Parts: sequence; structure tokens; C-alpha cells
Amino acid sequence: MKSNTTAGEEECLGWAATDPSGLLSPYNFARRHEIVGIVKAVGCGVHAFKVGDHVGVGTYVNSCRHCEYCSEGLENHCENGAVRTFNHLDFDGTITKGGYSSSIVVHQRYCFRIPDGYPLASAAPLLCAGITVYAPMMRHNMNQPGKSLGVIGLGGLGHMAVKFGKAFGLNVTVFSTSISKREEALMLLGADKFVISSDEEQMKALAKSYDFIIDTASGDHPFDPYMSLLKTAGVLVLVGVPSEIKLHPANLILGMRTISGSTVGGTNETQEMLEFCATRGIYPNIEVVPIQYANEALERLVRKDVKYRFVIDIENSLK
Amino acid sequence: MKSNTTAGEEECLGWAATDPSGLLSPYNFARRHEIVGIVKAVGCGVHAFKVGDHVGVGTYVNSCRHCEYCSEGLENHCENGAVRTFNHLDFDGTITKGGYSSSIVVHQRYCFRIPDGYPLASAAPLLCAGITVYAPMMRHNMNQPGKSLGVIGLGGLGHMAVKFGKAFGLNVTVFSTSISKREEALMLLGADKFVISSDEEQMKALAKSYDFIIDTASGDHPFDPYMSLLKTAGVLVLVGVPSEIKLHPANLILGMRTISGSTVGGTNETQEMLEFCATRGIYPNIEVVPIQYANEALERLVRKDVKYRFVIDIENSLK
Repeated sequence: MKSNTTAGEEECLGWAATDPSGLLSPYNFARRHEIVGIVKAVGCGVHAFKVGDHVGVGTYVNSCRHCEYCSEGLENHCENGAVRTFNHLDFDGTITKGGYSSSIVVHQRYCFRIPDGYPLASAAPLLCAGITVYAPMMRHNMNQPGKSLGVIGLGGLGHMAVKFGKAFGLNVTVFSTSISKREEALMLLGADKFVISSDEEQMKALAKSYDFIIDTASGDHPFDPYMSLLKTAGVLVLVGVPSEIKLHPANLILGMRTISGSTVGGTNETQEMLEFCATRGIYPNIEVVPIQYANEALERLVRKDVKYRFVIDIENSLK
Repeated sequence: MKSNTTAGEEECLGWAATDPSGLLSPYNFARRHEIVGIVKAVGCGVHAFKVGDHVGVGTYVNSCRHCEYCSEGLENHCENGAVRTFNHLDFDGTITKGGYSSSIVVHQRYCFRIPDGYPLASAAPLLCAGITVYAPMMRHNMNQPGKSLGVIGLGGLGHMAVKFGKAFGLNVTVFSTSISKREEALMLLGADKFVISSDEEQMKALAKSYDFIIDTASGDHPFDPYMSLLKTAGVLVLVGVPSEIKLHPANLILGMRTISGSTVGGTNETQEMLEFCATRGIYPNIEVVPIQYANEALERLVRKDVKYRFVIDIENSLK
């Protein structure tokens, strides 16, 4: 069984508050991580999976299953609170233990089928970074070929947004604060354009030219310069977590623009995304490491030194 | 010919910066006003109207007619700039003169048919306050019976939002800073609930209970308390113009919520709204005054002393 750590800017904010040279607490470390593996046994009511199937588990392992949102397949928004995969109080009073272990027991509803032939290690990051950008991209109709997409931030989430954007036939621009991302964005990930967000002249020249922006940056940043890049009725979706959103009303009102938020996704859309990635050959860029490397990996995450997700090979580490 | 002044909080912000005891400049006064009257003559290419028809003119009287937005009937978002009705440079180099006059010459495209029997004086405010709330309500699917709508601010725009909300079969709550609006909201306008927005306890009790909020307040106000009233995937539409929007990302992300802006509406939706008001018997609450009363009316607007729109009776004033 493999499980991976999440990378990218959205986690750095939290980790930065800790001492990177010391041991991070498992709770902080383990949140929002995702797991893939092979089915060892199934319960008597389980029909969706059989022993030997390749499966994955995302950021939550339980929900009430009867509220409005569970009924709609949006278990991540369960009214009674989705149970997070790591170190979270489950409905039966136990604490969830996550996936840094030789096995995990999960209700089939929160278990996803990894399509045949899709590498397990590549599947893991899809269950957090992948779905976090895929779900809002689909919800806001970003899958219309020819439309233009801006991706703010090129971490674990951002690099998946570029891949999905290209697969949807969009014209994709990466906005970053770091020129070091330029080559990767254009050459490795296939973005059409790369813009340093502090380049005011270039930003001005792009005014009103994007249908969509997906904002994966968690560092504090101004919103008005990005909002003004949107066309009339354009949509910016925030999936990163800065400390505050501040913008001028005219940037919403005059352009009939929208800013919307999103976090991970429901079970149906997660399975749909896995199939989409398998069909279209979309793979996250990963670096597979043993569990013994976890603390060094964390240090590198703090330095944003990962392209773009670490995946911990639990199976071979525990041999 | 009648024309009316706009009322409500959205204009007060601009007017408050002036001296209410002095004469306001015509430019400031005249912006965003709307006109209704009777057709006196038609040009040779005009087929949509004939002499004697009751018609209205909204906040803009021209646009390029060939850009993406004009083609979609969103002339208010014309890429080359919609020409405002009052004191704005038209494409031919002339300055628009508005409707405080015995006649106005307008291209048929920017002229709306007032449905038979619908009072002219009542139609005027529909062309600004009415369409400003109707357009985003339709765009964001607020016409689903049984859904819940919060209306922030009870001025010219807010009172129309309540009327449309009730006509759409919504459960409507008015949020106001002033207890003096309570009776009117509930008794006169038919709102289902009235909440003083500073009442933290009541606000907390309403957390996650609204599908939609339409924010017509232009005074500065916090957004987080209102965002947290929205259900998962709820939408707040801003049509007022405060000086800044500031909110916590969690209020967007965790609830998959949206904040969107809007201003007036296109020609198709404006005509649609007029028909809807006539069919459903929806009339703005107005106070008809002669042009000689205009300065006193302005003073009362500054004091927010109008329920809810002044309409200037130009025809009888100029006799």
C-alpha cells in the first residue's frame, strides 16, 4: 500500500508556523493526505469491490449518508460533517488513523476504483490535489475547448489545473511569483503562457482576457489585479487558503464577475476524475520516497522544493 | 413624458459627499436615471414601435451593436462602452441629455415597450432599480419556488428584490440596520422575515440557511456575517457599491460559496422583466413629484426619506 503527502503552496502556510528542523505533529502532517492500495478483504455487504482490486481513499472516510449533500454525492459537504481520513473523530467514537500503515478499513462508499493500468503511485495525488481542482473546473464549466484559463500558483494543485486545462482544450496561462517556474510551466506541463504576476505592464495588457482563473496560491496576494484579468461574467475559483480576500466591488459589479470557493470533491466526481485521467493519460508529477524520508520531505515542502507531489511508498518501506 | 430619479442606498454614497443644502451638479444627479413616455415620431427604419406606443428608456441609449456582449443582448457590458443616458459622450461626439425634457430621441434597440395598462410612472423605476435586481436574480436561478432569499438593505433596489422574490415563490428575509423598516418589510412588501443585521444571536441562528442573498447596501458593511448565512453552494450577489469587499476565504471555500456582482441588465432581459411585472402585477412603490420639487427630493434622498422611488412628472411639470 502506498500513501502520499500533499505538496504545494496550500500546505506550506500551516507548516511554516512549525519548526521545520523538529518533528511535526502527526495531526498536522497527516491532514488532507490520500491513500491508494490493493483490496485485501471485503465485508459481506460489499459488491463494488473484490479482493485484488486497485483502490484509493481520499481525504474523508465517512459521512452521515442521509443529508441533502450526501444524497447529492457531495459527501465532502455533509451537513453532519465529513470524517477526515487522518486523526479525526469518527461517528462511532474512534479516531481515524489514516494510511501510513499496512492496511486501512474503509466503507466502500469512500473507496474509489483505480482504473486498470493506472499506476497506483500516480493515482494517490489525484485524490486530493487532482479532485480539488477538477471538481470546481467541472462545476464552473471550464471544460469548454477554446476558452482561456489562468492558473495562479504552480504547486501540487496548480500543476494539475494546468494538466486538466490542457486536456479540456483551454488556452492556459500560469501566473507565478517565481521565474524559476517558467520552463516547467511551458515545457513540462504544456501551458501556453507564463506570466510573472508582479509584472504590472504584462498584467495590464491581459485585462479582460480570461474566461476563468483558478487560484491555488495560499500565500497572501492581492485579488484586484487578477479579477481585472477576467472577461465580463468571468469566474475566479479559489482553492488555496490565503488569510484574507480583499477586492474592490467594481471588479465584481461592472464586469458581472464571480469569485467562488471550493474544497476537494464528492465521491461521484472523484471517481469520474479518476476515469478521466486514465482515459486521457493525465498523470501528476510525483517523487516517490520511503517513509524514512518523510521528515526530509517535509523540510523540502517548507522550501517548496517538490515537483509536484511526494508519494510515500508505504508497502516497500514497511517490508 | 415622465422621468424619475433613482433612490435608495446605492446612490447615497455619491450624494453624501456633496452639500445637501446646495445645488447638486446635473452630472451627478442625472446618472443612472430612467425615462418613460409616449412615442411622438418614429424613424424610417423603425418597425418595433409606432406613434402612441408607451415606451421606456433605461440607463444607456447606445452601444456598438457588434461586439460579443451586444450580440448576446448584454449591451450594458458592450466592449466599446455602453453610452449612458445622461451626460455621456455618444459615439457621434454628442453628449447625451437624458430625460428631463419634453422629448428624447433614442434608437429603437434601447427603447422598451411598456405593456398595455401598466402605469407609466410605475414603469420608470423598473428600468433601473427593477432590472438591477431582476437580471442577477434570473442569472443565478433565484426563481425556484421554495428557495430562501436574503435581501440586504431596503431601498429602491431592495424593495424590488423583495417583490420579485415573493413573485418567484421564495422565502424572503430582509436584513436591515434600521428597525424602522420592519413594518414595511413584513406588512407592505410581504417579506417573510425581518432581521436587524447587528443582532448577532439571530444572525448566528440563521447560519447556513439561505440559498441566495442579494446585497443592495452601498454603505460599508462586513461580508463574513452574511456569507456564513449561505448554505453550501449558496450565492451572494452584490448590486450595491460599498468601498471594499473583505471576507475570509473559509467562507467561500468550505461552503463552496460564491460572491458575484451585477449592474443593470441587457435589453432582452429588461423587456422580459417589464412583461413579467405586468403579468404578475408587480409595481414599485413610488412618490410622484413635479420637477420643481427635485432639489427637495434630493435632500430627502440624502436622509433616505423615500419609499422607495421618486418619479418626476416631467409632462405635467413642463405644462
